[in-house]
Amino acid sequence: MRRVALLALLGGWLLALPAAAEGIGSRVFVVERASESLAVYDFMERKLLPKRITGLGNLRHATMIFTPDLRYGFLATRSGKVSRIDLEKLEVAGEVFTSENSIDNAISQDGRFIATAEYVPGGVTILDARSLEVLKKHRASFELNGNAVPSRATGIVDAPGNLFVCVLIEAAEIWIIDASKPGFPITHRIKTKQDNPYDAMITPDGRYYVVGHMKSDRVTVLDLTNPDAGIREVSLRDPKRDYERGAPVKLPHLASWAVAGKYIFVPLVGEDRLAVLDRATWEFERSIPLRGHPVYAVRSPTEREVWVSFSGEEDDAYVQVVDVESLKVTDTIEVGGRIYHMDFTPRGSHVLVSANRANKLFLVNANSREIEDSVELKSPSGVFGVWRAFRIGL
Amino acid sequence: MRRVALLALLGGWLLALPAAAEGIGSRVFVVERASESLAVYDFMERKLLPKRITGLGNLRHATMIFTPDLRYGFLATRSGKVSRIDLEKLEVAGEVFTSENSIDNAISQDGRFIATAEYVPGGVTILDARSLEVLKKHRASFELNGNAVPSRATGIVDAPGNLFVCVLIEAAEIWIIDASKPGFPITHRIKTKQDNPYDAMITPDGRYYVVGHMKSDRVTVLDLTNPDAGIREVSLRDPKRDYERGAPVKLPHLASWAVAGKYIFVPLVGEDRLAVLDRATWEFERSIPLRGHPVYAVRSPTEREVWVSFSGEEDDAYVQVVDVESLKVTDTIEVGGRIYHMDFTPRGSHVLVSANRANKLFLVNANSREIEDSVELKSPSGVFGVWRAFRIGL
Repeated sequence: MRRVALLALLGGWLLALPAAAEGIGSRVFVVERASESLAVYDFMERKLLPKRITGLGNLRHATMIFTPDLRYGFLATRSGKVSRIDLEKLEVAGEVFTSENSIDNAISQDGRFIATAEYVPGGVTILDARSLEVLKKHRASFELNGNAVPSRATGIVDAPGNLFVCVLIEAAEIWIIDASKPGFPITHRIKTKQDNPYDAMITPDGRYYVVGHMKSDRVTVLDLTNPDAGIREVSLRDPKRDYERGAPVKLPHLASWAVAGKYIFVPLVGEDRLAVLDRATWEFERSIPLRGHPVYAVRSPTEREVWVSFSGEEDDAYVQVVDVESLKVTDTIEVGGRIYHMDFTPRGSHVLVSANRANKLFLVNANSREIEDSVELKSPSGVFGVWRAFRIGL
Repeated sequence: MRRVALLALLGGWLLALPAAAEGIGSRVFVVERASESLAVYDFMERKLLPKRITGLGNLRHATMIFTPDLRYGFLATRSGKVSRIDLEKLEVAGEVFTSENSIDNAISQDGRFIATAEYVPGGVTILDARSLEVLKKHRASFELNGNAVPSRATGIVDAPGNLFVCVLIEAAEIWIIDASKPGFPITHRIKTKQDNPYDAMITPDGRYYVVGHMKSDRVTVLDLTNPDAGIREVSLRDPKRDYERGAPVKLPHLASWAVAGKYIFVPLVGEDRLAVLDRATWEFERSIPLRGHPVYAVRSPTEREVWVSFSGEEDDAYVQVVDVESLKVTDTIEVGGRIYHMDFTPRGSHVLVSANRANKLFLVNANSREIEDSVELKSPSGVFGVWRAFRIGL
């Protein structure tokens, strides 16, 4: 409580300073889902900024994207509203309703366009990042018994070539949209072999688009350098283990996968192991035993380590560190209850960890493993640093 | 000329707006060596900002580094002065003389310390990035005929673990300095087998430190994940080609190397080829024939392409694009006379190209290869985008 009071005091003083007294580059936006707001932490100043951004709507699964000039961030919400946040003033600078229920969004490689993946009505809306004008709506539907039935869209990402890629849930179809051409045409519609895609991700080099399917142990992989070659399917089952006949491998959201060094690390929900795939061949390499059921695997920018969080009260305050070279757990760190999200600072010196039950954001030194700072937050979840502006697929 | 007048007009108008009207994230600093100044281009606004930063001293081989909060940039000069630049106000915000002649500088992984490599007197100075206070001076010397003789230091970079790495020219010794320990101790002093190191670089993942030696075709490679294992030497000669006995392979500055996909691309000065090494084994893979003598190889953030510039009036207005998968030249683009430096925008949509004889900075669309903008500058050389703040080793 004393810390909060001190921060409030400091906050008042800082507001009186010119804007340049704090830099924008070290700002981290943290979703406080219960209060539909964003808190802002500065990892260089090591403090919570006094201003909260409120009234943002349902932020479940919300991700935040940023323009390359670092003027704005964007949030798409389950309420269908896209909010634009001024990164300097820390206030809403425009909003637009693109649907009744949106799931996520992406910014084009050139920073000029925002695409939103929508559940209701299903499809993709493309906005001008400057004017917030709606430039294009692609309705998603598929044919069922001769009728056009709407489909939800999800997993939207940007890709090299100024492209957007997403997947349609009911239609089981990947779309590639070209944001460098007039009218934002859908250049590829690629059916997945399996039904019920529910989420997707792109590798950090922007090469592979990976789609997860409900109740399936096989993901769909599309090589974006040659989409005409079509999809392939990759199994996440360890061929050396016995599985109950028909028991499904449950997958978490694909944003929880980590690509580092020669490998791809996949947390397997409900198992106490991390699956390791070969990054070049997508072959199953091995699985790594862990202390509990993994939720998130996050790579260090050095690609030397992957940090893993867990579900379940006995494990969810801990992070295990996996060495990318040896594929072994090298460290276990106690941070705080119910870790929801982790992100490395851009050059890997520290890790930002939100702990939902502990109501805290922690700053952990990635080299010494020491907790160097923590601030009080209200049930924090997603953690989004502005440097995401400079990464492909975020 | 009409373009310049228009920009000046726009400039005046923009100065009257609040600071947040332009974002910091898309600012690119361009060295105008002859006038000892920096020009500032905004790649999202597509214009030169009206303010120049002047009186910076001898900017030969100057590189610019940035703090993680994007408040400041730093330049070390051949005059021995370190200048701190306010990235919002675009003016000098502090300077300190650390030597009589400095060659380059680096910022620690945690953004708190600046290290300068110095020729006269030889050594390394470590500054507090906030206060500009000198925290440590490591004098560089070696023993010659029983006397301590000074050595120049060069090639300073930051590395994972909050380390600095540099190499001493006359002493032929690599230093690793730990910036997370009190007193900034030199934890490793590793002799190179060859004499006369003249420059060095670190791979973008922060793993390998590579040192070039005068008149040698072999570079020294140190694996920073295991420095105690010592150095190895790697030859850049194509084993399939005949060389004149004893003819030296001349190497350019090591900042001109590109690491992309499975390979390392090395421009060989005075030859019309790019050497390609295996990134994992450092074995010579092949060489790629080019239209002229290469100077710089720069990777796209997508790691799908490497763009190469050339020396010699017949070639120096051109860029050749090498495909990382096929290792073939896929495109030749005419940009402008005497290309000195190239940098991709952070997610690879465009390339910034400074053309010294043409007195221009070009913005080239990396996907369509079209020149989308150009601005007039006075003999421009180095091009430094603020997103370097978020990359290891820059």
